[in-house]
Amino acid sequence: MTADRIGDVGEAAALARILARLPTSPGTLLGPGDDAAVVAAPDGRVVLTTDVMVEGPDFRLAFSTPHDLGFKAAATNLADVAAMGARPTGLLVALTVPAETPVAVLEGIADGFADACTALAPGCAVVGGDLTLSPTLTLAVTAVGSLDGAAPVRRSGARPGDVVAYAGALGRSAAALRLLLDAPDADAVAHLRASRAELLAEQLAPSPPLAAGPAAAAAGATAMLDVSDGLLLDASRIARASGVVLDLDSVALGADVAAVAQALGTDAATALTVVLTGGEDHGLLACFPEDAALPAPFRSIGVVAAGAPAVLVDGGVPTAGALGWDSFAAYRD
Amino acid sequence: MTADRIGDVGEAAALARILARLPTSPGTLLGPGDDAAVVAAPDGRVVLTTDVMVEGPDFRLAFSTPHDLGFKAAATNLADVAAMGARPTGLLVALTVPAETPVAVLEGIADGFADACTALAPGCAVVGGDLTLSPTLTLAVTAVGSLDGAAPVRRSGARPGDVVAYAGALGRSAAALRLLLDAPDADAVAHLRASRAELLAEQLAPSPPLAAGPAAAAAGATAMLDVSDGLLLDASRIARASGVVLDLDSVALGADVAAVAQALGTDAATALTVVLTGGEDHGLLACFPEDAALPAPFRSIGVVAAGAPAVLVDGGVPTAGALGWDSFAAYRD
Repeated sequence: MTADRIGDVGEAAALARILARLPTSPGTLLGPGDDAAVVAAPDGRVVLTTDVMVEGPDFRLAFSTPHDLGFKAAATNLADVAAMGARPTGLLVALTVPAETPVAVLEGIADGFADACTALAPGCAVVGGDLTLSPTLTLAVTAVGSLDGAAPVRRSGARPGDVVAYAGALGRSAAALRLLLDAPDADAVAHLRASRAELLAEQLAPSPPLAAGPAAAAAGATAMLDVSDGLLLDASRIARASGVVLDLDSVALGADVAAVAQALGTDAATALTVVLTGGEDHGLLACFPEDAALPAPFRSIGVVAAGAPAVLVDGGVPTAGALGWDSFAAYRD
Repeated sequence: MTADRIGDVGEAAALARILARLPTSPGTLLGPGDDAAVVAAPDGRVVLTTDVMVEGPDFRLAFSTPHDLGFKAAATNLADVAAMGARPTGLLVALTVPAETPVAVLEGIADGFADACTALAPGCAVVGGDLTLSPTLTLAVTAVGSLDGAAPVRRSGARPGDVVAYAGALGRSAAALRLLLDAPDADAVAHLRASRAELLAEQLAPSPPLAAGPAAAAAGATAMLDVSDGLLLDASRIARASGVVLDLDSVALGADVAAVAQALGTDAATALTVVLTGGEDHGLLACFPEDAALPAPFRSIGVVAAGAPAVLVDGGVPTAGALGWDSFAAYRD
């Protein structure tokens, strides 16, 4: 079956097989196949973000299926668009793959991208891409979106008195990763995938509620980002950019803490640390004026106060240790 | 000096040092630093393309400086935007780098991007990016552009009677690569870089005439692409997409043939093969109505004829052997 490997099939044939699996959309004025794509930008602006996943630092084929990889690479980039208050309209997918990679792996990745668009951002299509040989499997994705006339929701607009709110799950992605890293062998990973599918999906193929991003913009959100590096670290980014204190309420995180404690078999204090610092949640953290109606599924998890930029938990400095996740530091350990 | 390596400095500090070197532009409504950038799309559409360069298959640090890498990664992506007839407005740059990479290398890459924007696409800025650890150095770039009200110039519009025209150099990039690959050691490479700087730049840091892209659209170009995989192979893409014959005139390629023959010390027939199939030229190949005034620096290099899709040279089937360059096939050899 050597003819089914990328290095033998060739770029053009492999691309044709991938493209056939990808969704299109009415906003794609010109899709793949020319030097560049053309995408509608109805309000005269376009939101753009790029994010790379590298085998080793960012994922392991021992844990993730090809479908997982495509789904997660799409989700993380779509979350960055949604975190500006924008509606994702397109993805560009650049894959670097070892020559011995089966084309079926690329087809699985393509299906993951397709399913993520359908599930998380209906109307978003893969509009272009690139395929290159490399010793290292890498998914470099660019996402495009439309603000549809709204102002972008930055990190810098939070004001004292605002409500801090979050849409999505917290800590479960990190809990799932810990279970996977603790699995002694492939059989144990397979058992986890079968018995804890829902929890593992939070890490391997997350489905954050991204429609909440434009809804937050419409509801008057003053600041927003997606939580990729842990709640405390990402909250501190809003605190710094806005020059405010974010005071989080641990009681409001109770459901997440309980889920993590149950998943890992730990006490609540340990689980709270995971919830506060875990990373790769990809839900949306936003601040809203006190009188705003929080759009579903946002829930209040704290308040914004005046003061030197800081993140507090229950009014005090969190004891969770390191604030969150730095890929470079993590890779060093 | 370990503190100067990416893996020690950390992502945030490294990014800050890179971003300080990059150009901004009036069309950048929101630049790096938030979840996503916002770029103006004045006519309600945006042109998008992505292209990856991988150490090994696509470049070698033994040949290229960091500045070269940034410059070339920018140029190849900007060329894809220009080949649609669009004006580049922004770049997103995702770098995957080994942990031991000196930050100075990233600064050199950033300077290359900055200088390429200034030289090839004034007004184009780096609007976002990502930085990730990887065993393999990779530059994944997305370029964005504006058609400014014009229709995109696709590959499919060439008609019998059109003039085939090209803007840029041909064959010199491949000739330079051959000289580099033939260099026996680092001293020989250094000598080449000193003695043949202009020729080597065609391969290592190409400067195709990208303003000719929007000019071609304005002049009524019926089909266009940038020549990245060799003149014959890319011409065959226009021939296939348009359902026409492109008949190239070898006499019109005389200056390129002479330059390549001189660079490589070969006869004209051998040099013509390099000109026809070399690859990585990144100039613009376009078809124009017979009565169109060719915008500078386009020059006529052939005519479009009716017939089953094919590329001819001087009215006959070219004897240049393989049509051009397929990264996957090349990597197999």
